[in-house]
Amino acid sequence: MTAEERARKIVLVLMDADGTLTDGRLIVMPDGEELKSYHVHDGLGMLLARIGGLELGIITGKTSKGLEKRAARLRIIELHQGALDKPRVLEGILERLGIAAEAVAFIGDDIGDIAVMKTVGLAAAVADAVPEVKEHCQYVCRTPGGRGAVREFLEFILKAQGKWEDVCARVHEVKGAGI
Amino acid sequence: MTAEERARKIVLVLMDADGTLTDGRLIVMPDGEELKSYHVHDGLGMLLARIGGLELGIITGKTSKGLEKRAARLRIIELHQGALDKPRVLEGILERLGIAAEAVAFIGDDIGDIAVMKTVGLAAAVADAVPEVKEHCQYVCRTPGGRGAVREFLEFILKAQGKWEDVCARVHEVKGAGI
Amino acid sequence: MTAEERARKIVLVLMDADGTLTDGRLIVMPDGEELKSYHVHDGLGMLLARIGGLELGIITGKTSKGLEKRAARLRIIELHQGALDKPRVLEGILERLGIAAEAVAFIGDDIGDIAVMKTVGLAAAVADAVPEVKEHCQYVCRTPGGRGAVREFLEFILKAQGKWEDVCARVHEVKGAGI
Amino acid sequence: MTAEERARKIVLVLMDADGTLTDGRLIVMPDGEELKSYHVHDGLGMLLARIGGLELGIITGKTSKGLEKRAARLRIIELHQGALDKPRVLEGILERLGIAAEAVAFIGDDIGDIAVMKTVGLAAAVADAVPEVKEHCQYVCRTPGGRGAVREFLEFILKAQGKWEDVCARVHEVKGAGI
Repeated sequence: MTAEERARKIVLVLMDADGTLTDGRLIVMPDGEELKSYHVHDGLGMLLARIGGLELGIITGKTSKGLEKRAARLRIIELHQGALDKPRVLEGILERLGIAAEAVAFIGDDIGDIAVMKTVGLAAAVADAVPEVKEHCQYVCRTPGGRGAVREFLEFILKAQGKWEDVCARVHEVKGAGI
Repeated sequence: MTAEERARKIVLVLMDADGTLTDGRLIVMPDGEELKSYHVHDGLGMLLARIGGLELGIITGKTSKGLEKRAARLRIIELHQGALDKPRVLEGILERLGIAAEAVAFIGDDIGDIAVMKTVGLAAAVADAVPEVKEHCQYVCRTPGGRGAVREFLEFILKAQGKWEDVCARVHEVKGAGI
Repeated sequence: MTAEERARKIVLVLMDADGTLTDGRLIVMPDGEELKSYHVHDGLGMLLARIGGLELGIITGKTSKGLEKRAARLRIIELHQGALDKPRVLEGILERLGIAAEAVAFIGDDIGDIAVMKTVGLAAAVADAVPEVKEHCQYVCRTPGGRGAVREFLEFILKAQGKWEDVCARVHEVKGAGI
Repeated sequence: MTAEERARKIVLVLMDADGTLTDGRLIVMPDGEELKSYHVHDGLGMLLARIGGLELGIITGKTSKGLEKRAARLRIIELHQGALDKPRVLEGILERLGIAAEAVAFIGDDIGDIAVMKTVGLAAAVADAVPEVKEHCQYVCRTPGGRGAVREFLEFILKAQGKWEDVCARVHEVKGAGI
């Protein structure tokens, strides 16, 4: 089955945070809180995905207050921080939402993401993912993490589903959701 | 009509913020406020533009306190944050300032900017704009957003208007405006 | 002796901070405190190193509160800030831990690191280290500082010790350590 | 006269700040304060310059509290912020220190630096300086601003003065100065 065929079945896109939604940098504050760098292209990509009917979730091994705020702004329906056992988190999501694993896509960058990538219907790696991760992915982005890789992947799915032109035309319709 | 010919008529330059005046990165603080990275080359470019008689404005779908401060320092006359319907904001500006759309230039990076780009006299894209945006622009910068793309575009306009040499020579004259 | 042969004997990996664990940038706050940018790939690399039985330490000439927090999260056993005389700090560590210099690896980027590099069993430079430093190293990273150079070096050691496949498979086992 | 010959006469190195000591990025805080990114390689370069007997100064058109702190840490003897008329500031320095313009070097990146570059004994541009600036410089760095360009320029001067090997060997001697 090609990546395009896999993409047609996706209803939920799960994302790793550090190195995927961010560029992997951790700006450590004097109190230990970490600041991270997200990207506006990914933000608009997630808005377009929601216009196109895709739901979004984040599974990350780390924890930050900033991500909580950003996820709320972007209307991420599933946010799982401090999740060291990502496959178990995925199981819970599938059960709660009542969807099959083949309806789920995942995008990540490091070896902690491999187990969950083996389970989902479509796995993607950012351009600067470690080589071990890329081996387990059907789609490898041309764009690095935190620079629009998530946008590229969401666009790939929306195009495979024949929705891209329509969601672009409807970008001004959305009210009250951040990017 | 060439881009140079279009540039000669410009009296107001409107700019997108995230991904255009900034490099698109969003550093999310624990309280949800987003820090963004502007560039000093753009700042001096805007000072030179003002010396050359151009007025400046910003239309952005997002909202940040930092941009409000920066716009005041740079003496931006039109600042519109949280503007999801950019074409309508443009209409209001044209009416208020009593100028025609062909006297307005716009520089942006993402598909939310396309509608307004179709209306103005001269449209520009930063080097790392998405492909859909570049198709609607008469000028595509060699420089990415947040790294001097706005400076490059303002320089292009000032040169087309035959003002570049003069404004450079007068850079030390300006008092009390930030870069 | 090849770099691989040297790597087999390593039990402790010492790291410089600025320019090695960070990208060398110093974001200076109004109160003089400096914020620095670490990388999540290095964080996971250090977790894998600990799974593989390697101990970790940091010797840096500068001082920051953020590094103290990050080192605690990563379970760095030796943290030496404000250390201008790095060779003397190394001596103290060797004595306290009761290990030989040939069991110690060091990774750095600038000329303040050369003296200690001459003493240890295996010396490495980040890709953007100054030329003088690279001359004294048996391993030169392809990755720049603060972008995964430490991860690359730890991976090189773990592979030389035949532990890489095993530690990758055990990445989900670890509880309570940050990356 | 070659750049090397000019470098032999230098006793004071003046530097622009934004785009030269920093990478030009301005992270604007909600209160309008701007955070900027300096580099540790430049910091060590300035320490080496001081070991080699060179004095250091900064002339910048902008103003930030962070730079004040950093300049104190690096023992910069002349710090001039908010200096829009750089040539006049230079005159004051020459008079106060009782040195000739040919004993002064200047490194900068933008057109506000050109007037002072025409006056001093040796002028340098960072790799990403605007083209107009490079035309007025005897030395153009391979390294961009905020990534070690100042270090490269100081190294060039110290080598021309035959001091480089010696100052590198004495790097561990210095007490109480930051990098």
